[in-house]
Amino acid sequence: MANSVNDLRYELALASRMLANEGVLDAFGHVSLRHPSDPDRYLLPRSRSPQLIEPSDVLEFTLDSEPVKPATEKLFAERVIHGCIYQARPDVNAVCHHHSPSVLPFCITGIELVPVFHMGAVLGTAAPFWDSRDEFGDTNMLVVKPEEGQSLAKALGAHWMILMRRHGATLVGTTLRELVFRTIYSHANAEIQLRSMLLGKIGPLSRGEAERTGPHQLQPRPMARAWEYWTARLEKSGEMPKSAPRRARKTQAAKPGTAKSPRGQMARRGAKASHAKR
Amino acid sequence: MANSVNDLRYELALASRMLANEGVLDAFGHVSLRHPSDPDRYLLPRSRSPQLIEPSDVLEFTLDSEPVKPATEKLFAERVIHGCIYQARPDVNAVCHHHSPSVLPFCITGIELVPVFHMGAVLGTAAPFWDSRDEFGDTNMLVVKPEEGQSLAKALGAHWMILMRRHGATLVGTTLRELVFRTIYSHANAEIQLRSMLLGKIGPLSRGEAERTGPHQLQPRPMARAWEYWTARLEKSGEMPKSAPRRARKTQAAKPGTAKSPRGQMARRGAKASHAKR
Amino acid sequence: MANSVNDLRYELALASRMLANEGVLDAFGHVSLRHPSDPDRYLLPRSRSPQLIEPSDVLEFTLDSEPVKPATEKLFAERVIHGCIYQARPDVNAVCHHHSPSVLPFCITGIELVPVFHMGAVLGTAAPFWDSRDEFGDTNMLVVKPEEGQSLAKALGAHWMILMRRHGATLVGTTLRELVFRTIYSHANAEIQLRSMLLGKIGPLSRGEAERTGPHQLQPRPMARAWEYWTARLEKSGEMPKSAPRRARKTQAAKPGTAKSPRGQMARRGAKASHAKR
Amino acid sequence: MANSVNDLRYELALASRMLANEGVLDAFGHVSLRHPSDPDRYLLPRSRSPQLIEPSDVLEFTLDSEPVKPATEKLFAERVIHGCIYQARPDVNAVCHHHSPSVLPFCITGIELVPVFHMGAVLGTAAPFWDSRDEFGDTNMLVVKPEEGQSLAKALGAHWMILMRRHGATLVGTTLRELVFRTIYSHANAEIQLRSMLLGKIGPLSRGEAERTGPHQLQPRPMARAWEYWTARLEKSGEMPKSAPRRARKTQAAKPGTAKSPRGQMARRGAKASHAKR
Repeated sequence: MANSVNDLRYELALASRMLANEGVLDAFGHVSLRHPSDPDRYLLPRSRSPQLIEPSDVLEFTLDSEPVKPATEKLFAERVIHGCIYQARPDVNAVCHHHSPSVLPFCITGIELVPVFHMGAVLGTAAPFWDSRDEFGDTNMLVVKPEEGQSLAKALGAHWMILMRRHGATLVGTTLRELVFRTIYSHANAEIQLRSMLLGKIGPLSRGEAERTGPHQLQPRPMARAWEYWTARLEKSGEMPKSAPRRARKTQAAKPGTAKSPRGQMARRGAKASHAKR
Repeated sequence: MANSVNDLRYELALASRMLANEGVLDAFGHVSLRHPSDPDRYLLPRSRSPQLIEPSDVLEFTLDSEPVKPATEKLFAERVIHGCIYQARPDVNAVCHHHSPSVLPFCITGIELVPVFHMGAVLGTAAPFWDSRDEFGDTNMLVVKPEEGQSLAKALGAHWMILMRRHGATLVGTTLRELVFRTIYSHANAEIQLRSMLLGKIGPLSRGEAERTGPHQLQPRPMARAWEYWTARLEKSGEMPKSAPRRARKTQAAKPGTAKSPRGQMARRGAKASHAKR
Repeated sequence: MANSVNDLRYELALASRMLANEGVLDAFGHVSLRHPSDPDRYLLPRSRSPQLIEPSDVLEFTLDSEPVKPATEKLFAERVIHGCIYQARPDVNAVCHHHSPSVLPFCITGIELVPVFHMGAVLGTAAPFWDSRDEFGDTNMLVVKPEEGQSLAKALGAHWMILMRRHGATLVGTTLRELVFRTIYSHANAEIQLRSMLLGKIGPLSRGEAERTGPHQLQPRPMARAWEYWTARLEKSGEMPKSAPRRARKTQAAKPGTAKSPRGQMARRGAKASHAKR
Repeated sequence: MANSVNDLRYELALASRMLANEGVLDAFGHVSLRHPSDPDRYLLPRSRSPQLIEPSDVLEFTLDSEPVKPATEKLFAERVIHGCIYQARPDVNAVCHHHSPSVLPFCITGIELVPVFHMGAVLGTAAPFWDSRDEFGDTNMLVVKPEEGQSLAKALGAHWMILMRRHGATLVGTTLRELVFRTIYSHANAEIQLRSMLLGKIGPLSRGEAERTGPHQLQPRPMARAWEYWTARLEKSGEMPKSAPRRARKTQAAKPGTAKSPRGQMARRGAKASHAKR
């Protein structure tokens, strides 16, 4: 199981870099993953820009968002977003918080984000809003207190995406790859919805279409196709995590065969590993 | 003739990558080509992102969109778009289906796409709409059943481009290069039309202008100029198909001279080969 | 003088590539230069995308837009744009015709392009419109007949830029570098004017400001600063012309010293050489 | 102290290139730094595009914007922007003047720029306007005379950013890194505000939120995270200053250890050095 965690550290670094490479994340934003064997823990990098995350930057946290081992590294201030959602949503195994320039106009105007083309259906049938000012008044806008994280998780409810007024968005997935797919295509949907609304009156997916289309797009075939594409783009940008997944100390004498192409292996294994059983 | 097919596999991989490199295609979308000697077959890659297509990914299909040889590879779900159009349109030898972010706002609002500058005339004098909901009600939005493909082909009629509500666009050409040219410049026209409509009242080409300008732009000289440019850009991006066109097994002992620059040779030969006689 | 012409061939290839690299030109568009010693001739590349022009692609034309030497190469169909303007405007030594996506919305809507920030003043105080339909009715939109080129040149009058309805723009300069500077910053002004008009009511430069600001920006210091920058960007893109300026056959035994850094030398010399005396 | 100045020359070259690499600056615009030990001097490059600045391009100026040593290099015409602000604002140690395409639409329409998301709060609670025409009538738009610089500095008052009508923006910071952070995120805020205003009615930060959020974002942790990210992007673009910081002549025999990674060292040291005590 130690190997799995190391593999997932690599997968999480990969996903963070991918989301930055596709224009969703910039210097800020973060992605986490529930621990594959201990549902009461999650994996999140130390405070660092997502495009620079290395597997060794990934730390373990309790669901109260405290580091499992005393940490000397700087930590993300907004960890409670992750911990509070993992507490509230047993079906969720991955969380992303971002400030995408395509999604922000919806967070700033309060205009509802809806699936306007088939790929956009991965955001779900609707995305609720959350406004920190409603419960907490004037703050520094960051979600740092447990009660703020709980309030956000409550507003998310059973949805897959929540828009945070004047701040950004938080998305969840049952696996890390599903989360990445949802994050990239909801970002694309937002951009296309904005451009469509400038052009004329939009005709979005009906509820029946959205309910049928979203789950269909999240099947293995389209997800694998996109993951291969985004990985290839990341490789071509020279942005792959520099270190291959480290073997756990106890199992350093790994089989030579498995060491040959740790990334390809990871890519296959991680996909399953991130569907953590709970 | 075996050589021609291999050359066309390379040409199809090249065209797919070119359309991705120019921003029309992303992880999704696909391009096909009618078989050069058997008009009852077409060539389409296995399910893979267009920017990653290799010549060896290209498979043969009947016009019922069944693979000619039993296929172990994953196949595109929406193959009927291609097969049904080849059945309905004997003049068509290449088909592209995409979800361009410039064209989608027209598919979502129902605003008509029209040639607004001379290069845009390659889309034809008009592009009709097709809405899967009209005949098939709430679906998962994909065009997968023969009757769906036939309905789309019927709506396309004698046009060169059709806009699919809440989904994307499908374009056709008499040759692969004509298709690429039309796809890239109709995408450019859409972007410029959208931006123009934000600025003021548009004054598009008259019907007489569109009828004269479209065919003129599709003559060999401008088509060759653009093809050289897009190929050079693809090469500079490091995105050319990795493998040169493979020789058919029976003719492996090819003339050494022809093997020297298979790509350049291909580029010249493919242009003619894709004008398949029917 | 033969050397000068070869240097200018290199300079023209450089300028063409620069304008493509900065997003003004794509597969189409062209740039020309009046002959430095014979004002009745001009230099224009053969029909090729501007980002691919090599010095050896540059040919000589009479002001009737006929090639001076019988040409086997394919030629630009719209050469009369250049020839007719050189005939009408003795002060003009360089011409650019383009279809910039930032300028086209003005050509399509008829909204006037005006200097909205100081750099935009390089377009002059105003840019007139020309519509091929006014005099020539429904055409294939290209400016190919002498009377079409003359009509365009007449509409340009004493201005530095003209907007061609449903087509693009043509700009002129007293030198090639002035033309490049004007072309890039009028393109930038168009983009910023469009975005500003979406936001609110624009407050452009007053006529007095435009008259003072344009000439000031076209002084040697700002022009040299920008030229160095655009050249550096082109070099970094790996897009510099592949061949250094060729020595004329008669003077092949050039001084060794001058051969050392032909580009830097060119950069300095070309700037002056392109201010052809008439 | 000589070393510090050399380090700061490198830091200033780095900051200039970073702002160009992130799309705020183009061929024009400039960044300066108050002298670390002599508050009556400032450091500014010679007239050169920001993405090309080398440490050796950085010169010293008095607060009257005269070069301390007779300069043979071409100098920026608008130096008084820097000198006059350093005179008026003892708390300011770094100044940037730019023409960002995201900020310009506000300068052209007079629409107020306000923090619309948490990162935008780094611009302060508001950004005043300055119009050269109010006091100086029709000019060539450049801020070149002492009275023009003084007028601008007066309009800036105690703010961190000022919008110059039909021209651009000027920003100030207590340190160079704070200035870079503010410049990049006010540019991002402008882009997002423009896009939000196209979509609907914006709901910006309340004054209380802006007052709490801005200073919070400018704390060491977020600033260091972004600086690491922008530096990594610059390195990946191949745009780092070519020369490492030069040692002052008197201290050429530097400790070998410190010479090993001058950039990393610089990155750490410069951050402190730029908080010059006054």
